[in-house]
Amino acid sequence: MAVYTKISDSELKSFLAAYDFGELLSSVGITEGVENSNYLLSTRRGRYILTIYEKRVQPNDLPFFLDLMKYLASRGVVCPVPVAGNDGRVLREIAGKPAAILTFLGGSAEPQPGAKWCGGLGKELAALHLAGQDFAGARPNNFSVTTWQKLLSRVEGRADEVKPGLVEDLQAEITELSVAWPVGLPQGIIHADLFPDNVLFVNGAISGLIDFYFACTDLFAYDLAICLNSWCFEPDGAFNATKARLMLSAYRRVRPFSRAELKALPLLCRGAALRFLLTRLYDWLNAPEGALVRPKDPLEYFHKLGFHRQVRGPGEYGLD
Amino acid sequence: MAVYTKISDSELKSFLAAYDFGELLSSVGITEGVENSNYLLSTRRGRYILTIYEKRVQPNDLPFFLDLMKYLASRGVVCPVPVAGNDGRVLREIAGKPAAILTFLGGSAEPQPGAKWCGGLGKELAALHLAGQDFAGARPNNFSVTTWQKLLSRVEGRADEVKPGLVEDLQAEITELSVAWPVGLPQGIIHADLFPDNVLFVNGAISGLIDFYFACTDLFAYDLAICLNSWCFEPDGAFNATKARLMLSAYRRVRPFSRAELKALPLLCRGAALRFLLTRLYDWLNAPEGALVRPKDPLEYFHKLGFHRQVRGPGEYGLD
Repeated sequence: MAVYTKISDSELKSFLAAYDFGELLSSVGITEGVENSNYLLSTRRGRYILTIYEKRVQPNDLPFFLDLMKYLASRGVVCPVPVAGNDGRVLREIAGKPAAILTFLGGSAEPQPGAKWCGGLGKELAALHLAGQDFAGARPNNFSVTTWQKLLSRVEGRADEVKPGLVEDLQAEITELSVAWPVGLPQGIIHADLFPDNVLFVNGAISGLIDFYFACTDLFAYDLAICLNSWCFEPDGAFNATKARLMLSAYRRVRPFSRAELKALPLLCRGAALRFLLTRLYDWLNAPEGALVRPKDPLEYFHKLGFHRQVRGPGEYGLD
Repeated sequence: MAVYTKISDSELKSFLAAYDFGELLSSVGITEGVENSNYLLSTRRGRYILTIYEKRVQPNDLPFFLDLMKYLASRGVVCPVPVAGNDGRVLREIAGKPAAILTFLGGSAEPQPGAKWCGGLGKELAALHLAGQDFAGARPNNFSVTTWQKLLSRVEGRADEVKPGLVEDLQAEITELSVAWPVGLPQGIIHADLFPDNVLFVNGAISGLIDFYFACTDLFAYDLAICLNSWCFEPDGAFNATKARLMLSAYRRVRPFSRAELKALPLLCRGAALRFLLTRLYDWLNAPEGALVRPKDPLEYFHKLGFHRQVRGPGEYGLD
């Protein structure tokens, strides 16, 4: 959960001295974002987010993420915009950690988005992919096909505690996916973590995309596969093909995708399910003893992986 | 950590239909309050807190807490005010749980308040005690001398895992405090949990007291003892008598306390330290396996208890 770093009034004051925000009216720790600490600051000039980057974000990656958000916002993507201080700098330090101020976006996340929300998501995802096409930066995806073997090696000693036979099963899956993984499909900047938690709505319309700290360069269709996994399953585990169809058809009205991309979806969906299964397994097995908040259930993604394995073609995602 | 209950947009909309707040501009889960889920709602009419009461709060107690906040606010205490819907009701349901809307208070909590903040706290605490004097409601303190034996029985099977000999030590402490616990001291409504987390400041002045969900009827000086424990120790465990002197002397300028109350402080401070030690032990021993956030260290309060045990008189809290 968020807000790992508590900051004192004097630390906050000296940090904000670099900005012309006027009086600070309130600051509250907020729960958005699992990886970093976030404060919502209300000032005379408006509302801002102070993000303090915790250990899961590589400091070397921060300029990429911040430049990307600035670029995407300038191209019309509704994402937080980094705010430079009077010295022109965006990235500075608070409590010994890297930190930045970003604009606050209104709206509310929808934890269980119904079918009507999935069309909006597809449209915004396609717009995001188009908007990033001329961005100069690049960053490899640390959570795609080339890194799964390493992610498995972190958990293989204990993954069978979660489900007997899991290691062997995942090893076979990685081998199969590595051989079959598509090459040559359209790629560019992807969000790579666009779960419902990271999408804000006002009156049913998307008002913000947040948490770009997994963004990277990879296949556009892999981003779609991540969203199919995180938006189109019901709480009881059933896949909702109507949601998938709405998402995919809204996406392709903005960025038409090729037959090859569509055909690759079942495989990419298996890869996306595997990716979240592997990182959740690690979090599950390495959580500190005796704590209040359970990590997310890794087996949710084992079941999703199972669904995608038995899919016979992209038609089962609602499109032919 | 906060936000246990995630709510959907449609649940929130139908809940807010009972209020004339105008359009909902944003909602964010916030980390204030360990016991309940809280959302900061920004509407056309202003900012409000939606609190969803989780299992640790007894539903039967909610009318007491909400009436108390309303009463205290009408007497000038800067606390959240429950907001009634168009039907006149404050308490309603969301996601199958009791919930209420309260006014939002500006300001920021100060995780490590320096000496200058302790005077302000003493003054507000005394004002709170005076403001509650004619409140009609009453609620027993479930975390004072009559309940410690029961709290110990919940942990006695395993408390020695945390520190060998702890159970025997705490049993002796409970016996000694039960015999010596003062009777006849001034009492009334106390906050009972006024840790730095629950006090908001703007420019060094207190702008809000929050989280009244342990409020009850008990000795005023016990509330002071809770604040001495939670505000006057340094992170390294050292007691800061300057902070205590500033707190106590600011308090008594607003509500003069008797010689008997002053004399009882060392004993009351032991009781307050014991109270948080017992509940933190329970949380520590009963946290679910494999989780992300560690419960607070119970031994912090064992060390504080040790300090108060060796105190020879109230002079060591800075006042004679």
